[in-house]
Amino acid sequence: MQNFELTFLGCSSATPTSIRNPTAQLLNIAERFFLIDCGEATQIQLRKYKLKFQRINNIFISHLHGDHYFGLIGLLSSMHLLGRTLDLNIYCPPELEEIIDLQFKHSQTYLKYKIIYHHHKFIANDLIFEDSKVEVRTILLNHRIPCCGFLFIEKPLLANIAAETIKKYQISIEQIVKIKSGADFITQTGEIIPNNKLVTTQYKPRSYAYCSDTCYDERIIEFIKGVDLLYHEATFMNDMLSRAKETYHSTALQAATIAEKAAVNKLIIGHYSARYKDLQPLLDEAQTVFKNTVLSVEGESIVVSN
Amino acid sequence: MQNFELTFLGCSSATPTSIRNPTAQLLNIAERFFLIDCGEATQIQLRKYKLKFQRINNIFISHLHGDHYFGLIGLLSSMHLLGRTLDLNIYCPPELEEIIDLQFKHSQTYLKYKIIYHHHKFIANDLIFEDSKVEVRTILLNHRIPCCGFLFIEKPLLANIAAETIKKYQISIEQIVKIKSGADFITQTGEIIPNNKLVTTQYKPRSYAYCSDTCYDERIIEFIKGVDLLYHEATFMNDMLSRAKETYHSTALQAATIAEKAAVNKLIIGHYSARYKDLQPLLDEAQTVFKNTVLSVEGESIVVSN
Repeated sequence: MQNFELTFLGCSSATPTSIRNPTAQLLNIAERFFLIDCGEATQIQLRKYKLKFQRINNIFISHLHGDHYFGLIGLLSSMHLLGRTLDLNIYCPPELEEIIDLQFKHSQTYLKYKIIYHHHKFIANDLIFEDSKVEVRTILLNHRIPCCGFLFIEKPLLANIAAETIKKYQISIEQIVKIKSGADFITQTGEIIPNNKLVTTQYKPRSYAYCSDTCYDERIIEFIKGVDLLYHEATFMNDMLSRAKETYHSTALQAATIAEKAAVNKLIIGHYSARYKDLQPLLDEAQTVFKNTVLSVEGESIVVSN
Repeated sequence: MQNFELTFLGCSSATPTSIRNPTAQLLNIAERFFLIDCGEATQIQLRKYKLKFQRINNIFISHLHGDHYFGLIGLLSSMHLLGRTLDLNIYCPPELEEIIDLQFKHSQTYLKYKIIYHHHKFIANDLIFEDSKVEVRTILLNHRIPCCGFLFIEKPLLANIAAETIKKYQISIEQIVKIKSGADFITQTGEIIPNNKLVTTQYKPRSYAYCSDTCYDERIIEFIKGVDLLYHEATFMNDMLSRAKETYHSTALQAATIAEKAAVNKLIIGHYSARYKDLQPLLDEAQTVFKNTVLSVEGESIVVSN
């Protein structure tokens, strides 16, 4: 099965702490490396965990609070200094292009590679990336400034047909292609063999929804329904609900409530306030509502299996 | 004696490596904390070495190559988020103000403290900071884009008069003040006691010259002559002299030659190219010309004594 693995590079909110970095995640789907947000020192985290950053061809920035993008200019500079020539796509709020351009202008840096900007329109379920293996759609979040999350969905894989099935029914190559795309098979005696009796693997495409930063907002549920993996920010414990509301953030309880209502398979929480040295209480709180919750931890990965 | 201590936060050139961060230094002179350059992750380094960053009231940025300032926006943001209200002075190329303003604008951040920008005029020996204890002057460097170093000089301290001297000559309080400022003393019998026979401590004010980034340029020598401590970049070994010239950087040998010609007391080198895992050869090369050379090492400090 192709890879579907998420690695956490930074799990802190707002300010880095002595033990946590601001938000960044690296998602590998079928050897496409997607960088999701890029807080300060993301390039240093990538080096620390021995993740080759020149393999990243697509960077998704949710919004323009610094803890989600201050590391981008440094990463782009290093890509240039280390000889990158391959195009790089950045999906981001429009103003980010101006911020990056201004800094390269004043350092008189002329990139050896091309950056292709894809400006967020800030609408829900907007298809912003698509290739043969993956598509990415926006999730409209509710934050103090325009912000969107991202839904990564595998493309359905063509089914496999076991060698003995091909032999048994004497299926031609031409017919194999049709069956892989969903067709039934008619034998020489006229018997119809339904597609699901012929193919061996027809697993449901995996999906990952990234939701940070946002206040509790049930409008996202319809777009993340049933995903395999949901990352939902949990900046605070629920005893700080009023602070969460005031800052357009969520509590661990609220993140779990969204996961429960959206019937996702697994919830990961993160974007922890610096006040929480021990994260266990956040996890405990979330698990009172949604059992299959885990904490995001820097340097650790989650493999999404099917 | 008052403090005069320099701490290294980042000693790498261009790109961070897995073991080194881009340039930043913290200089403490008499409990004034001066931040000199601010590469990416400087705020993280400050936390790592338990240096309280809210005590920094003056930040000096040499030039607008990213490895010298990409960490500034994150540090300024964290100062804000952690409740700073005290004014902050930034001495920098004019364009930096635009870069910082643009980012705060798009994140809709309204600082609770005031930033006072002091734009470099890029002239030599320009007095850019002065208080009762310290003055700071520019050193005009020769780099690919406008760049200046900084010369930090202690103000002369008022001399001390030993208690037995005061008793012996029966010196009044009024006369003590005059003697501390350099006056001689006339005894009741008319004898003139010269000032240097009265005062006990008249040490030479200490000085630190920061020179990064620059190609080899002897024009700086007259401005750094005899300083106690010189930091001079040494990006390359001398076998890469042509690469050094091309990129407007210096070799370890060149840094040492400047130190020798300027008759400084001690030389520190840094801004090492990522290609040098082991720094000993850079030190060895510098010491062939200037014996009292040391390597800058992240997290370590140098105390300038008199």
